[in-house]
Amino acid sequence: MNADEVTAFLDAAFPPATRSLLGEVQSLALNHLRMRLDPDPSMRRPGDIVSGPAIMALVDVAAYGVIAAHHGPEAMAVTHSLSITFLRACRFEPIIADAQILKLGRRLASVDVRIWQRTPERLIAQSTVGYSLP
Amino acid sequence: MNADEVTAFLDAAFPPATRSLLGEVQSLALNHLRMRLDPDPSMRRPGDIVSGPAIMALVDVAAYGVIAAHHGPEAMAVTHSLSITFLRACRFEPIIADAQILKLGRRLASVDVRIWQRTPERLIAQSTVGYSLP
Amino acid sequence: MNADEVTAFLDAAFPPATRSLLGEVQSLALNHLRMRLDPDPSMRRPGDIVSGPAIMALVDVAAYGVIAAHHGPEAMAVTHSLSITFLRACRFEPIIADAQILKLGRRLASVDVRIWQRTPERLIAQSTVGYSLP
Amino acid sequence: MNADEVTAFLDAAFPPATRSLLGEVQSLALNHLRMRLDPDPSMRRPGDIVSGPAIMALVDVAAYGVIAAHHGPEAMAVTHSLSITFLRACRFEPIIADAQILKLGRRLASVDVRIWQRTPERLIAQSTVGYSLP
Repeated sequence: MNADEVTAFLDAAFPPATRSLLGEVQSLALNHLRMRLDPDPSMRRPGDIVSGPAIMALVDVAAYGVIAAHHGPEAMAVTHSLSITFLRACRFEPIIADAQILKLGRRLASVDVRIWQRTPERLIAQSTVGYSLP
Repeated sequence: MNADEVTAFLDAAFPPATRSLLGEVQSLALNHLRMRLDPDPSMRRPGDIVSGPAIMALVDVAAYGVIAAHHGPEAMAVTHSLSITFLRACRFEPIIADAQILKLGRRLASVDVRIWQRTPERLIAQSTVGYSLP
Repeated sequence: MNADEVTAFLDAAFPPATRSLLGEVQSLALNHLRMRLDPDPSMRRPGDIVSGPAIMALVDVAAYGVIAAHHGPEAMAVTHSLSITFLRACRFEPIIADAQILKLGRRLASVDVRIWQRTPERLIAQSTVGYSLP
Repeated sequence: MNADEVTAFLDAAFPPATRSLLGEVQSLALNHLRMRLDPDPSMRRPGDIVSGPAIMALVDVAAYGVIAAHHGPEAMAVTHSLSITFLRACRFEPIIADAQILKLGRRLASVDVRIWQRTPERLIAQSTVGYSLP
């Protein structure tokens, strides 16, 4: 797949109202997918920060996208486990998710997802996601 | 706090559109809070299952609620880490979250959250959530 | 398997020097195995506490034992993921591990392990372990 | 600290018999520490692989070392949480641990640790470790 194909795959995989909360594909490379999310007002929490569940949803879709791009779209992967550490408050401004495949096995895929704002060094969260492959 | 006070606290903590996606307090006991979520159509995914991020949002709010109930509502706790394992597909029907405090320290609180449907033995997910206390 | 058979299985699975650092089976019930470890001097750390890795090794063997007891000893399970939260310092005195199967699937097993001392309420750590089944 | 000082710090922090199972400092850079472990026969498991707990002990010490190098040795950090995913069997041959600080806060430090053999792309495990700072 190329980046446009991943976009089309994600657009088809989610209902439109949900899809719009999950960010856009920015770039695709070997074992890597970058997505960008402009937060929606519904994600705003006191202190002008973005809610944790909105970030977890972005992590999950970025991991899903990078697996689809490398494993193929025909088979449906399901989230098996997700572990996330929040490192800084997420400001109400654009958010980048860098998803990198750690291992694409026959039955399980593991993906590292880093969430950042402004610069890659200003990490908001790190997550490791396990997907079961059918 | 009693169960009604936790409900009022959660109602005040989230914008109404978000709050309605986060379930209702069912019962409160020492170190334990039970919530129930009737899934919203926006959470539906192919195969008539509930999306993983909707479950993670329920986990997060249940942990938040049980901490507020025992630590007090004045201070704002923030999610520090969350680890979840998905055990079974979540059907599009009522979901129960049982949140139990493992440790309420001065700076960190750890909460075990179990998600189930129909009977407590039919676990959908288990999660351990760490909250930073201010 | 009964408790003696789990003991025999663990005795055969580890070299003797390692096995002696991994505790003894105390009881076995449906989906549940309890082990007890009397810490070895090599596990002692400043402040008279037991080292984190010694606790993680106990968690891992308790999860392994409860899976073998319910899945059968013939096939070799391997740890796929482990997530642990340390809740209190572990004193240099007997340690109990309660391992409970959350889900025994065809390909993956998930086990909750609680480490405690003196009383089950005085939790030292909670861990969720995923094992791959061959 | 420089690499020799981290080595001296680790040598002082663990009893000699334990220390010898925890690998050697290879290099230190900003936010990064690399350690190397030549596995001990006690770590060998059937199939000529290295045990999971031996890898977790290496993860823990590498995270501890990189925090000490950047936070200072005077104060004692304790492991708060550890999440690890095993990606491949670990052969009975030299093991490298790359520990990178994700965030060094006032009260909590988060470290990403990657375990590999032969080449950095051949990942054996990925772990995220949280340490409480006193």
